[in-house]
Amino acid sequence: MKIKDFLYCETPSEWLAGVAANLPLLLIDHANCEKKAASTALNLMYRYVEHPKMLARLSRLAREELRHFEQVLDLLQARGIEYVQIPSARYAGELRRHARHGEPGRLIDVLIISAIVEARSCERFEALAQVLDEELAAFYASLMKSEARHFEIYLEMAADFGGEEIGARINDFLTVERHLIEAPDPMFRFHSGVPSAA
Amino acid sequence: MKIKDFLYCETPSEWLAGVAANLPLLLIDHANCEKKAASTALNLMYRYVEHPKMLARLSRLAREELRHFEQVLDLLQARGIEYVQIPSARYAGELRRHARHGEPGRLIDVLIISAIVEARSCERFEALAQVLDEELAAFYASLMKSEARHFEIYLEMAADFGGEEIGARINDFLTVERHLIEAPDPMFRFHSGVPSAA
Repeated sequence: MKIKDFLYCETPSEWLAGVAANLPLLLIDHANCEKKAASTALNLMYRYVEHPKMLARLSRLAREELRHFEQVLDLLQARGIEYVQIPSARYAGELRRHARHGEPGRLIDVLIISAIVEARSCERFEALAQVLDEELAAFYASLMKSEARHFEIYLEMAADFGGEEIGARINDFLTVERHLIEAPDPMFRFHSGVPSAA
Repeated sequence: MKIKDFLYCETPSEWLAGVAANLPLLLIDHANCEKKAASTALNLMYRYVEHPKMLARLSRLAREELRHFEQVLDLLQARGIEYVQIPSARYAGELRRHARHGEPGRLIDVLIISAIVEARSCERFEALAQVLDEELAAFYASLMKSEARHFEIYLEMAADFGGEEIGARINDFLTVERHLIEAPDPMFRFHSGVPSAA
């Protein structure tokens, strides 16, 4: 499935217009997102040991996110950007707030959310590659393929556990996601909405 | 530094004598230990973003632990061992209980504990290679080198932050560790003590 056919909206031009003024912040937040993606995979690996095929896929996925983290770290250092602690975007937390609590609903929802986050990252990498300097554009173009594959892996896993019933859940989460991307957002982050005056 | 000169005791023969009867449990616990090692590295990567060199080393280390996890997972599947949830050994929790709370003491102690856990794993891999079947012996022999390197990396990082003052802390933790390895332990695990009747 094409990522742009999957997501309910594209990255707003207002967000892209804010990139240049927020580049250090964006790179730091991107480093955090890669760590968080690895953590999400690892947390699933703790909780669902009874699915060996999923465990192996998640572990390989976490390794790839960590490799990306190391690449972003190199970019931060090369550009003299100090890696400081910054609060997370509202994005992932708001998506997770809508996940079910009982099983297998929780697992299916976390997998769907992860697929959506990977899809949005991929869509945003492509958009970023158009507006960034040559080095960063090449870097983000290189990440697009990995994240597109991650999106598909998460979606396949969700389908494995949720069967044909996941369509409605995917729709629910994509609707929430669209709102998070299109609504005003006081904090500029990798997955933030339309920049608003803070 | 040689691992056997670092640790205060070798794996007791009573533990090794318990391996054959507890092999499935040992492999499952080993898989969990690799996940836990990756988590420990990742947690440090969340907390201490101001040390870029350490972040990169931890990330590579976490990737290596995840690769080992995948290898243990393959062994479990090949041997038809069901990966079930099992409680952790007392080992890591008891070591962590002695870590300081304030900084930089906490960071230094966590790095020292991680070095000790890696050293013990390495020592145990070597001991295991003597008593296991050919396939597992070769596997554990292959892991020895990685874990020996991890031990040194953690110890170097602890020295970076703790300077010359870490000797006494290392001694304290090695003393606790020796007790955990030599004292009777009702649960057989990768890092458990001398097997006692449960």
